[in-house]
Amino acid sequence: MKVGVIGASGRMGQAVIAALQTSSQHSLSAAIVSDNSARRGQAVATTHYQTLAEVQQQPDVLIDFSLPQALTDNLDYALQHQLPLVVCTTGLDASQQQQLAAAAQQIPILYARNTSVGVALLEQLVALSAAALPDADIEVFEAHHKHKKDGPSGTALALGEAAARGRRQHFDDINAGVRGNGERRDGSIGFSVLRAADIVGEHQVMLAQTGERIELNHRVSDRSIFAQGALRAGAWLVGQAPGLYKMQDILNLQETLQRLLDSESGE
Amino acid sequence: MKVGVIGASGRMGQAVIAALQTSSQHSLSAAIVSDNSARRGQAVATTHYQTLAEVQQQPDVLIDFSLPQALTDNLDYALQHQLPLVVCTTGLDASQQQQLAAAAQQIPILYARNTSVGVALLEQLVALSAAALPDADIEVFEAHHKHKKDGPSGTALALGEAAARGRRQHFDDINAGVRGNGERRDGSIGFSVLRAADIVGEHQVMLAQTGERIELNHRVSDRSIFAQGALRAGAWLVGQAPGLYKMQDILNLQETLQRLLDSESGE
Amino acid sequence: MKVGVIGASGRMGQAVIAALQTSSQHSLSAAIVSDNSARRGQAVATTHYQTLAEVQQQPDVLIDFSLPQALTDNLDYALQHQLPLVVCTTGLDASQQQQLAAAAQQIPILYARNTSVGVALLEQLVALSAAALPDADIEVFEAHHKHKKDGPSGTALALGEAAARGRRQHFDDINAGVRGNGERRDGSIGFSVLRAADIVGEHQVMLAQTGERIELNHRVSDRSIFAQGALRAGAWLVGQAPGLYKMQDILNLQETLQRLLDSESGE
Amino acid sequence: MKVGVIGASGRMGQAVIAALQTSSQHSLSAAIVSDNSARRGQAVATTHYQTLAEVQQQPDVLIDFSLPQALTDNLDYALQHQLPLVVCTTGLDASQQQQLAAAAQQIPILYARNTSVGVALLEQLVALSAAALPDADIEVFEAHHKHKKDGPSGTALALGEAAARGRRQHFDDINAGVRGNGERRDGSIGFSVLRAADIVGEHQVMLAQTGERIELNHRVSDRSIFAQGALRAGAWLVGQAPGLYKMQDILNLQETLQRLLDSESGE
Repeated sequence: MKVGVIGASGRMGQAVIAALQTSSQHSLSAAIVSDNSARRGQAVATTHYQTLAEVQQQPDVLIDFSLPQALTDNLDYALQHQLPLVVCTTGLDASQQQQLAAAAQQIPILYARNTSVGVALLEQLVALSAAALPDADIEVFEAHHKHKKDGPSGTALALGEAAARGRRQHFDDINAGVRGNGERRDGSIGFSVLRAADIVGEHQVMLAQTGERIELNHRVSDRSIFAQGALRAGAWLVGQAPGLYKMQDILNLQETLQRLLDSESGE
Repeated sequence: MKVGVIGASGRMGQAVIAALQTSSQHSLSAAIVSDNSARRGQAVATTHYQTLAEVQQQPDVLIDFSLPQALTDNLDYALQHQLPLVVCTTGLDASQQQQLAAAAQQIPILYARNTSVGVALLEQLVALSAAALPDADIEVFEAHHKHKKDGPSGTALALGEAAARGRRQHFDDINAGVRGNGERRDGSIGFSVLRAADIVGEHQVMLAQTGERIELNHRVSDRSIFAQGALRAGAWLVGQAPGLYKMQDILNLQETLQRLLDSESGE
Repeated sequence: MKVGVIGASGRMGQAVIAALQTSSQHSLSAAIVSDNSARRGQAVATTHYQTLAEVQQQPDVLIDFSLPQALTDNLDYALQHQLPLVVCTTGLDASQQQQLAAAAQQIPILYARNTSVGVALLEQLVALSAAALPDADIEVFEAHHKHKKDGPSGTALALGEAAARGRRQHFDDINAGVRGNGERRDGSIGFSVLRAADIVGEHQVMLAQTGERIELNHRVSDRSIFAQGALRAGAWLVGQAPGLYKMQDILNLQETLQRLLDSESGE
Repeated sequence: MKVGVIGASGRMGQAVIAALQTSSQHSLSAAIVSDNSARRGQAVATTHYQTLAEVQQQPDVLIDFSLPQALTDNLDYALQHQLPLVVCTTGLDASQQQQLAAAAQQIPILYARNTSVGVALLEQLVALSAAALPDADIEVFEAHHKHKKDGPSGTALALGEAAARGRRQHFDDINAGVRGNGERRDGSIGFSVLRAADIVGEHQVMLAQTGERIELNHRVSDRSIFAQGALRAGAWLVGQAPGLYKMQDILNLQETLQRLLDSESGE
């Protein structure tokens, strides 16, 4: 798969390029930067940093780690060349999300604010577990490095939302915030936060009922997984029908579950 | 729900009766023992220990924790009275399993060798994860009390089988047994075993790939959960169509997953 | 060892009596209650519930799980009969603590607000680790059942105090409280809290520095350990010189450490 | 502190040099290689790769990550210049260990086969805990990357030895090897092993008794800690009296423990 990386000079763009350079399956066909980037024209792998307008070798898929303000141009380009597009930009506003949806009627677009495959999977496992264990008390724990300023992490909140979704509830109605003093309200979801040293990111969702509990953990030890996840999303997106997809869609859970339930050796 | 407990004088039968006695939703309508049981005729809750032939107050569901040799009589009774039946007997042979299947054409039967709802859920999560992360290395750890003689536990092996099922593989082909000396074979599943003190039962499945990992844990702190799980299975079975079910079926994962994938707030 | 239990009708007194009844080494010689206790005169084990004044069979040690207001009488009795005394009463005021110290000049007294041997050990391990890893970030996590109203738990705070002590710091100067939003201040100790189901009590102290971390966990699955710990404290106290002891003293860490450092096979 | 690194071209020597280059407290004064090293003469930091005979800028301490066959020369040099020496060579035979002991009568030498400060601390915590909880069941778990060929790891075995030392027992008498099938023998220490992906190294020692357990974990996420530990050992060794030291000695546990036990706020 030939990959065009938009936002190629940013931290995540660079990470995707690094991942491509050690990949046996995928290659970098275009490292796309803005018109006024200092890197423009510099060589990278077998190509060079260039603007969208300068791209000559057509990629099979575009991975966009640029900024919200570049979205319109990126979508125009993808539409014009009928290219699948993985959008990893954070901070899109409502009108930009509508642009995505409109473009997705003509080309396959996957929109991911977090490109960790493990986190995408964990969210689904949490939602399924929350539904399957309706009486369990749910709590979310997260640990990050000492410089992280906000808490709970966006991923921790997304896991809480996944649990609420699994139970057909609104997260805002059951979000107890960070646990401290005070008795637990039945059905609430509490959060706990740890900050220390260089921890990249760890999340745990506990579902506890009398006498037993399930703990679902995700631990990241290397930030390169976000680039790997974006590549996996790109590879999956090639060949999909037009539509607006999310990371969860690449996990193929529904087909697996159907197969599991059909099999007779389930127990 | 009125419950008839078969094998009422055994350890698990007694546990189900204890669970019923503290339940606000369910009650014991018959405590069924064999003809020559020492308890026969003794009072228990608002009823007494009795044989199948002596049952007068018709239950809504039967929960069978008796022995394989009683299966034929139990099935005959359930068929005659058109009663849903939860079979928790271990050690059924092939012909007895055929008997189950045949009876299940007329009444709903749920067959569970392990009635922990948490373990049933964990098995499904493991299978889904193994499929979603096809490159992850999978390892299973289990801890039990110091008197447990066999290892890895039956549940640990069942979790390994679930992982293999998720990947469309035969467990025997990839089972590496207990890890010790020697390099890991790619794609294999290894087991590790801990024995100490009074640990009731803990299982962990790790799915690790470069830079990130998922750990799925189940911890039991009180054996009463097996009785609770049997009751939940019984409550679910009432009202189902005839058929042969398993613990996984009561988790309703498919409907939840469909709902999650349909929702637009997935990411 | 013959044990006299003061506060014998309370929850913890009953737990100690239960532990004695299954012990092969120790026995209950007096179950001591207040003058107006409803249990007074009732039989228990091979003795009966009685007041201090009624005790006839002299115990080897007294274990006091009664109330602060009974302290003066209990000390008087122990002094009069020269009996070692384990005081497990919580909520002693400053003058009562002075009473303890004064009596401890004549008899051995062990004062323990928490009689878990594991917690006593963990506190010492935490203090030692905090001193040995002066640059590590320290965080304390605790999990308890859903009905616990206060947080962080008293034990979690005691672990934070142990860490501060290890570093010759005042806990109040470095206590960051429950972690939530906001960047970590270097050298601070943060807490995180989980509340779910029937968790008896779990504590973790993490000491993390770049590239490595130590996690020290304590998990309780059965409240009977508090009675067992009181008995172990009592057995240790018999034969000690007069003095005011604490749970940490029964661990014998200093002698062990000396032996370890003397041995040549240390590395 | 000016550091001379012996074995400077090896993997660990390079890691120490890298750590020195980002250190604000320590600097590289000599990068020492063998006579026939390809790097000899090349520049590194503000010095260059050189043989022992070529060293001009006298270091404050030597850190030796070279090979056993170089030990005699390294000791001679350290003795001649009265330099403290950290020996991190693995595989020394009995006569080489005697050489170390002899030289240590004139200069301070610290011999460390594993330079992780965390592991050194964990070993001591395990020994102390094993002594303090004489009835606890002890089990050791370790996890490493998928390419590791031996198991249990050397560190896991060293932790088992530390536990045995804490209990005044011979490890060989109680080593149960890797746990699998078969009942636990009282007092034995069992091991469990996990191999997956890129796990750098994780160890857990559990001490479990009825109703409570302690888990002591060490996790490495970055191999640079071994270089950091060697530097900390070197900094500690400067100013010590002649003698043969080990990593445990730098932790200062004895002084801390004495201070803790002297303090009155212990409980």
